[in-house]
Amino acid sequence: MRALQHPDVANIPLSAVLNALADPVRLRIVAELARSGGIACQQFDVPVSMSTLSHHLKVLREAGVLRVTPQGSYRTHELRQEEMERRFPGVLESITRAAGAREVLGGSRRPST
Amino acid sequence: MRALQHPDVANIPLSAVLNALADPVRLRIVAELARSGGIACQQFDVPVSMSTLSHHLKVLREAGVLRVTPQGSYRTHELRQEEMERRFPGVLESITRAAGAREVLGGSRRPST
Repeated sequence: MRALQHPDVANIPLSAVLNALADPVRLRIVAELARSGGIACQQFDVPVSMSTLSHHLKVLREAGVLRVTPQGSYRTHELRQEEMERRFPGVLESITRAAGAREVLGGSRRPST
Repeated sequence: MRALQHPDVANIPLSAVLNALADPVRLRIVAELARSGGIACQQFDVPVSMSTLSHHLKVLREAGVLRVTPQGSYRTHELRQEEMERRFPGVLESITRAAGAREVLGGSRRPST
């Protein structure tokens, strides 16, 4: 399996990172990655098909948010947390933390009382 | 001038806030607001027409990011920083700080020399 392209985080505007993160499924993906480190594609707990998941992972990779590494016949995904932290201090960390608090993701979740 | 509607921040999903902020002009607006507190509409230093500026301010207001207050014949705008901080700790603060660092906005900005 060939290696995928990863943009230089230094060239990515903040608006592009926020745009990639501005989606409930992608927020759930980054929250899972923040919790657990490297994850193989089929292990994400998101309510979408594999092809939709692949699309979301591609959007996050192209925005510099995550790194994909081929591991034999599958790929692992991990956040580019340190590089993002250097470029946009606190941004990815606070967003993954907020996304990890289930109630903020919206959709069918109950508001806190 | 009638008062405008402001959503309850408790009902706003994180993805909606990020979506509102995922735009270079809107990032510039929130960075200016973070620096200077309340700003009247005609005082924003952004390279867009007044009608486009009004649209961007509306998007930010509807996402719970800013509050608009009529002041006689004009309106002032301020970030809803404390409410946002309670709901999504660190998110708006880190984004406005990153957006205030000129080089991260990308696009046609002049360098910060």
